Amino acid sequence: MAEEHHLVIIGGGFGGLTVARELKHAPLKITLIDRSNHHLFQPLLYQVATAGLSPAHIATPIRSILRGQKNIQVMMTEVTGLDREKRLILAKDRQIPYDQLVIATGSSYSFYGHDEWKPFTEGLKTIADATAIRRRILLAFEKAEVEPDPERKKVLLTFVLVGGGPTGVEMAGSIAELAHQALKSDFRSIDPRMTRIVLIEAGQRILASFPESLALRATKKLQSMGVEIQTNTRVESISAEGVRWGNTQIPAKTVIWSAGVIASPAGKWLGAQVDRSGRVQVNDDLTLPGHPEIFVIGDTACFLQNQSPLPGVAPVAMQQGLYVAKSILRKLSNQPKLRPFQYRDKGNLATVGRSFAVADLGRICLSGYFAWLAWLVVHIYYLIGFKNRILVLIEWAWAYFTFQRGSRLITESENSKVMD
Amino acid sequence: MAEEHHLVIIGGGFGGLTVARELKHAPLKITLIDRSNHHLFQPLLYQVATAGLSPAHIATPIRSILRGQKNIQVMMTEVTGLDREKRLILAKDRQIPYDQLVIATGSSYSFYGHDEWKPFTEGLKTIADATAIRRRILLAFEKAEVEPDPERKKVLLTFVLVGGGPTGVEMAGSIAELAHQALKSDFRSIDPRMTRIVLIEAGQRILASFPESLALRATKKLQSMGVEIQTNTRVESISAEGVRWGNTQIPAKTVIWSAGVIASPAGKWLGAQVDRSGRVQVNDDLTLPGHPEIFVIGDTACFLQNQSPLPGVAPVAMQQGLYVAKSILRKLSNQPKLRPFQYRDKGNLATVGRSFAVADLGRICLSGYFAWLAWLVVHIYYLIGFKNRILVLIEWAWAYFTFQRGSRLITESENSKVMD
Repeated sequence: MAEEHHLVIIGGGFGGLTVARELKHAPLKITLIDRSNHHLFQPLLYQVATAGLSPAHIATPIRSILRGQKNIQVMMTEVTGLDREKRLILAKDRQIPYDQLVIATGSSYSFYGHDEWKPFTEGLKTIADATAIRRRILLAFEKAEVEPDPERKKVLLTFVLVGGGPTGVEMAGSIAELAHQALKSDFRSIDPRMTRIVLIEAGQRILASFPESLALRATKKLQSMGVEIQTNTRVESISAEGVRWGNTQIPAKTVIWSAGVIASPAGKWLGAQVDRSGRVQVNDDLTLPGHPEIFVIGDTACFLQNQSPLPGVAPVAMQQGLYVAKSILRKLSNQPKLRPFQYRDKGNLATVGRSFAVADLGRICLSGYFAWLAWLVVHIYYLIGFKNRILVLIEWAWAYFTFQRGSRLITESENSKVMD
Repeated sequence: MAEEHHLVIIGGGFGGLTVARELKHAPLKITLIDRSNHHLFQPLLYQVATAGLSPAHIATPIRSILRGQKNIQVMMTEVTGLDREKRLILAKDRQIPYDQLVIATGSSYSFYGHDEWKPFTEGLKTIADATAIRRRILLAFEKAEVEPDPERKKVLLTFVLVGGGPTGVEMAGSIAELAHQALKSDFRSIDPRMTRIVLIEAGQRILASFPESLALRATKKLQSMGVEIQTNTRVESISAEGVRWGNTQIPAKTVIWSAGVIASPAGKWLGAQVDRSGRVQVNDDLTLPGHPEIFVIGDTACFLQNQSPLPGVAPVAMQQGLYVAKSILRKLSNQPKLRPFQYRDKGNLATVGRSFAVADLGRICLSGYFAWLAWLVVHIYYLIGFKNRILVLIEWAWAYFTFQRGSRLITESENSKVMD
């Protein structure tokens, strides 16, 4: 039966990779498709964007992760559509038939219809995004160093972060440390402490997914690091001049966007019902209504639990991946179906800066040094590859003791058109 | 006098950086200009191109290297010309006056007037070049994996290296190991051992700068690793179809160029006399004839010793940098001039593969394991930064024992137009 039953997984992120690994011994032919060659550990991507880590520290070739798994073929190509009647995946250069399908294609940034903002801001989803942000931030300091006009200098040294979720908070803290610590002695004509960092959030407070007490502590910590926090603020324009809302204009050359995400276009491929963020409505067993052979998981799925959709975070994708793998195994051995999927929230962590994090562990809320240690242990534990764990620990130890950053490279790119 | 006397160094490579560091305590105002923000350890660039090392391992921000040196300002900008009468440097966005000037602007690849080859081949001079080559090589394997046509598969798995100097030899050995060892178990529909690697050299033998006995041993080693070596061959065309000379056509999608270099355009800026490769003819004290205030060093200078110009290698640039720094110090303290510059060749190393290098140490010629150990020690010693030395050693140890590569990332770029 192995040859006949073909499972295709689209996406090598946390969800897709979990399905693949859990089916290591399954009598199936599996194809994993991804448009990039690597699995990316997105929770640490902000550290690549702020020059702390190298891309290779947090990105591992998918085929190298699955090397030992003989029932899997990894295929690097871009999926453009689906034919669910013929059970065919339409890719850029070929068609791939499937018997069962797992869609774990993630999400990307959404500017809420304001695509004209795109040239003036960067989201943070891929390695290329992260190195583009790194280039913008480091170039801003380089340009400020040679800029004689004090007003223009100020504009170059203003960094605006739109979106007060974990990514915005972590970026704000990391840029503050970069400016105030790592670059301190490196410039002659600017004082990197002149840096202005503004974190803008549309809601009432930052870190909406955390308890209010922790959000408050993170706010205080960020303010003590010199970050201005602007809540209840909906950005109305992002342009070459900076960010504007109402009568307020913040002149800035570097604007980083983490305010909204939209699911991958899988909903369109499937012709399925999607929510406002493009997420596919799924059954309680994560299958597509009417299609028990198609699973949708992770950021691409809209799974309601207690009347609200699960958040787009790695633990949800991984637990869903595990559930799907188990479902497939049960089906293969004709066992009864699993009970409906249920997400078990084991906690929520965000780091604000050197030795400071907030941790919501259900009954216990922590902030400060011990939360940061918990953050560190969890992230090292989930990082793939023994060598990467060692290298990241060395980078962190070095950064901790020297206050420096390990990967302060401006590399050439044709994307830098706006900055030049 | 400090404020009045302004020394400008153009270029933060081996030559320029040596001048800067040797003048740490000089009563001078120094400006170091570079168009990139990092000093690049070029001898290991081929390892970035073949996925062994991360860019940050071999590139360090220039201003971070010179952080403690209070008499230096580092300026990231691109020089476009010079006015030697007014003693002005013309940069993209400003003019910089100088009293003394050191030009250490290096070299770039030359296609001997065949600029139409450029879209189909890559040189190896910058981090962006290295990640572009890495992308090409890794994408070739990815495309071969999903290519059903065996002929096209073969073309995708053919790698041609034009130029049999140390860079070509090191790249050929490294690609052979990548294909035969690191990627061995990663693919299902191709056998990476199907890879064809062809090293083309116009001269009678590879490694022309080494003694013939060592070149012969390197040849044998490369051949044992499956590299085809084609000497006495002058490439006549590089196109989307591959490489051609006479009636021979090698169909290939990946062509890497290391056959010719041309000096930076400093000769044009100066209106000076240059040799065939664009190198500026200098006096025996490395100054420009008629301009004792202008020094030209490294790959940009044509310095004749025993009737032949010195090669464009790091030790020449560093020794010249040291000489120039000493000359400037003598001038400052009104001491007599130094004797003419003389290069002391301490040896020549090239690595061919795992545990194999050739070393020409003047009286002693080594090849094999001990030459490789010597190569390793020398490269770690000259690499800048304690942390980078540790990290590179870890990457090498890991690669040595696991046969894997640490940085196998395909990152998105707009440069990849030819491959797609």
